[in-house]
Amino acid sequence: MQALTIKKHLEVAKPSLDNNLSDMDRVNMSIRNSLGTQQISWPLDLLKILSNTFRSSAGSVTVTARKKDDHLHILAIEPEDTASSHFGLAVDIGTTVVAVELIDLNTDKSLAAMGDFNRQIQYGEDLLTRLHFSAQGGLGKLHAAVLDTINSLVGKVCAASGILPHQISAFCAAGNTSMTHFLLGLDPSTIRREPYAPVLTHVPELFAKDIGIDILPNAVCFIFPSVGSFLGGDLIAGALAAGIDKQDEISLLLDIGTNGEMILGNRDWLLAGAGAAGPALEGGVAECAKRAEPGAIERVKIDPSTLEPSYSVIGDAQPSGLCGSGLIDAIAELYLSGLLDLTGRFVLENKTPRWRKVNGRDAYALVDSNKKGEGPTVYITEKDIQNVLRTKAAMVAALTILLDSVGLDINSISRVYTAGSFGIHLSVNSSITIGLYPRLPAERFVSLGNGSLRGAKEVLLDSSRIADTSRIAGKVTYLELNIHPSFMGIFRSAKYISS
Amino acid sequence: MQALTIKKHLEVAKPSLDNNLSDMDRVNMSIRNSLGTQQISWPLDLLKILSNTFRSSAGSVTVTARKKDDHLHILAIEPEDTASSHFGLAVDIGTTVVAVELIDLNTDKSLAAMGDFNRQIQYGEDLLTRLHFSAQGGLGKLHAAVLDTINSLVGKVCAASGILPHQISAFCAAGNTSMTHFLLGLDPSTIRREPYAPVLTHVPELFAKDIGIDILPNAVCFIFPSVGSFLGGDLIAGALAAGIDKQDEISLLLDIGTNGEMILGNRDWLLAGAGAAGPALEGGVAECAKRAEPGAIERVKIDPSTLEPSYSVIGDAQPSGLCGSGLIDAIAELYLSGLLDLTGRFVLENKTPRWRKVNGRDAYALVDSNKKGEGPTVYITEKDIQNVLRTKAAMVAALTILLDSVGLDINSISRVYTAGSFGIHLSVNSSITIGLYPRLPAERFVSLGNGSLRGAKEVLLDSSRIADTSRIAGKVTYLELNIHPSFMGIFRSAKYISS
Repeated sequence: MQALTIKKHLEVAKPSLDNNLSDMDRVNMSIRNSLGTQQISWPLDLLKILSNTFRSSAGSVTVTARKKDDHLHILAIEPEDTASSHFGLAVDIGTTVVAVELIDLNTDKSLAAMGDFNRQIQYGEDLLTRLHFSAQGGLGKLHAAVLDTINSLVGKVCAASGILPHQISAFCAAGNTSMTHFLLGLDPSTIRREPYAPVLTHVPELFAKDIGIDILPNAVCFIFPSVGSFLGGDLIAGALAAGIDKQDEISLLLDIGTNGEMILGNRDWLLAGAGAAGPALEGGVAECAKRAEPGAIERVKIDPSTLEPSYSVIGDAQPSGLCGSGLIDAIAELYLSGLLDLTGRFVLENKTPRWRKVNGRDAYALVDSNKKGEGPTVYITEKDIQNVLRTKAAMVAALTILLDSVGLDINSISRVYTAGSFGIHLSVNSSITIGLYPRLPAERFVSLGNGSLRGAKEVLLDSSRIADTSRIAGKVTYLELNIHPSFMGIFRSAKYISS
Repeated sequence: MQALTIKKHLEVAKPSLDNNLSDMDRVNMSIRNSLGTQQISWPLDLLKILSNTFRSSAGSVTVTARKKDDHLHILAIEPEDTASSHFGLAVDIGTTVVAVELIDLNTDKSLAAMGDFNRQIQYGEDLLTRLHFSAQGGLGKLHAAVLDTINSLVGKVCAASGILPHQISAFCAAGNTSMTHFLLGLDPSTIRREPYAPVLTHVPELFAKDIGIDILPNAVCFIFPSVGSFLGGDLIAGALAAGIDKQDEISLLLDIGTNGEMILGNRDWLLAGAGAAGPALEGGVAECAKRAEPGAIERVKIDPSTLEPSYSVIGDAQPSGLCGSGLIDAIAELYLSGLLDLTGRFVLENKTPRWRKVNGRDAYALVDSNKKGEGPTVYITEKDIQNVLRTKAAMVAALTILLDSVGLDINSISRVYTAGSFGIHLSVNSSITIGLYPRLPAERFVSLGNGSLRGAKEVLLDSSRIADTSRIAGKVTYLELNIHPSFMGIFRSAKYISS
């Protein structure tokens, strides 16, 4: 298994009258002896420091390189043996949240993982708003904002791990098609306009300096391919992590994020679709929503007799919001306690001291403020519930159409891989209760965690998986669900709990 | 025959719901249909303009690319059909003079050729001074100066031809090893220090923006390989132009410039050496020296009976100096007229109204000033003659050792290719008279003109010759003449005219 980059210590012969090959040729000879690679290429910036580097350390140097077949492209040369400092960064570029994970490419160990809101949010919470802003001349700002988000996270994971950004020689990112365009500064204006042809689906391998990522300037950057405007590299990364294209059984990959996307299939066929789920499930959208970080309520129970809630909070912190799993739990529990009807409306006749009015609207308070006169600090409104139900209905409609198109029913699905920032925390039972997940035995569900980040990690650690990403992207048939004649009908009839 | 770059007009299918491949994939499909190339790569800067470019012209675009085997790297994409504007620049980077030639890559025609002093001269007339200046922290300035020289010439040939610099997509340059290092900003400090290992001999293909050449930013730049510190790409380019490695007969390539370099051999073997000729033969060094441009005396005759000179001048201009060929002619004619002895001293007893004192030193006046009281405007001194004789002696010593080492004598040389800025103009008879050229029948001499520039042009027009440059560079055995035991002895005894 060969990581996306390799790092190797070399002892380069000193020049002599008997061996006055050029410095480059002598280093190349050491590389050939050590790695057996025949074709070796150097970027000009490294040639400028080559001689001083190995003369300063009497020929003891470490090269970092990207190896493809019999070709080696050098990315860095450093004095002395630095081969033990060899790091890669996996990145999930979400519309709402960007997550990164720093990996030691020698030990395969994760050194630090962090996430942060995508700074593009200042130009629009949802993708459509950002695409509109981009078309109005905002592309440069959106490009800079996502770079800023990533570079700030680079600084944080490096500081947390005690390494320097320039020690990161491999970068692997997955995001939806629009995010990929924004990352590269490509105009995404055609993505949402018929006939929905993006600038590109397969991104060439680039160097960090070309994109503007503040790591090793020549670091290799692999960006996951997308299948089209609506099926992004994030889902391909999830499919890679799940390995659904290598199994005989039929699997479903569910990625519930800002959009609800899914891939259904096995080693013979892969069918994908996206329900325009809307932003309900990403932190920052529901009124008391919060990312899954300290202070977020992640589990909720409501006692059916007292109608009083109990909950667990991430970290050692006062509860200050609901993360996605808390929201799904709350809705499921409200429903199971009779406080919510099938349509997602509060049953206010069922009296509980938890009913509140917040800004004139009904709410169920999970956490009350300690101070008099203040409203509740964490609560849930009908609007929050309707948002979730729209997402749920889109997922149901999408899955129904995908299954119909291959003549299968839900029970033919042997395994459901759940991904997205949601997959990590969602309660399978609550998700089945409200109908967000298909009604299948709980043991068929496998949480990939952040599937996009996990796929990115797999490529970082094993560059041969790049070929798998192309293979998966090439095999997927994407069904355009928004224009499918059945979609709206199924969507409308699925906007109920448990339907 | 395929030029270093190719340029091709394409009609790219517009996107539709039936064909909503990405813009890049649709352009790639057109390229594959048109050129049959399978692997296509795009730099990020072009991906950023790709969509707007072909949408602005309803799919009619022209791509410029570098094709290698089955791989095509795109260098430019422009709206409409611009395939007829496809240009390349050949460059000879001389220590003293930089020469460029602008070539139409579609018609193989030369559009403009110009030369100018290398602006590095301000930091030292000869190479050793510049290498010293570089070691003192002057590398950046020397790098900038040679780039300035080339970029200024780019502007001039473009203006003269009515084309724009960004229409130049191919760049091919040859220079000695130090000039190659300076062009790329590489530290040349080890070139003149034992064991004389340069940073590199083979330069990877680069893009103009990487080097800093103001043409198409992604223009492909091929720099001729050198064999070592003392045998540069300029001589390899000359050998390529002469084709000496493809002949059965034994040829000699003589490159007389700031240094005197030569390659002897045939298809089976190539032997090279350099005599440290000194700067005598480059314009700007002899007291009245001038480049071969309007006003330069290029031919000189001295009437043996009157001892009066006659001469021809380049262009419609007053004579204002002597170019190299005029200098060699003058020395040969002075000698043949009995005004110069074997050792290069004036025979002042032979009275002629042309003897002058200039700054207290004896001189032979070729052109007198018209105004009273002023000295002659063009003259020749013994010092000028001694400089030429040192060059001549170094050439003789080098050639003698090369021939000895393979057990051949001068008569085994079937053809002498003369190159360097000198080869264009030198009179073969005068050069044989003073002993600068070997005493062989005049018909064996072939002037390559500027062999370095000519080799560069050949690669521009036929990229398959790149393989020949590596083959020649790999085949040449370089004899280190400066440390050869016989060199100084032969050199001293050859410092006479006609010896």
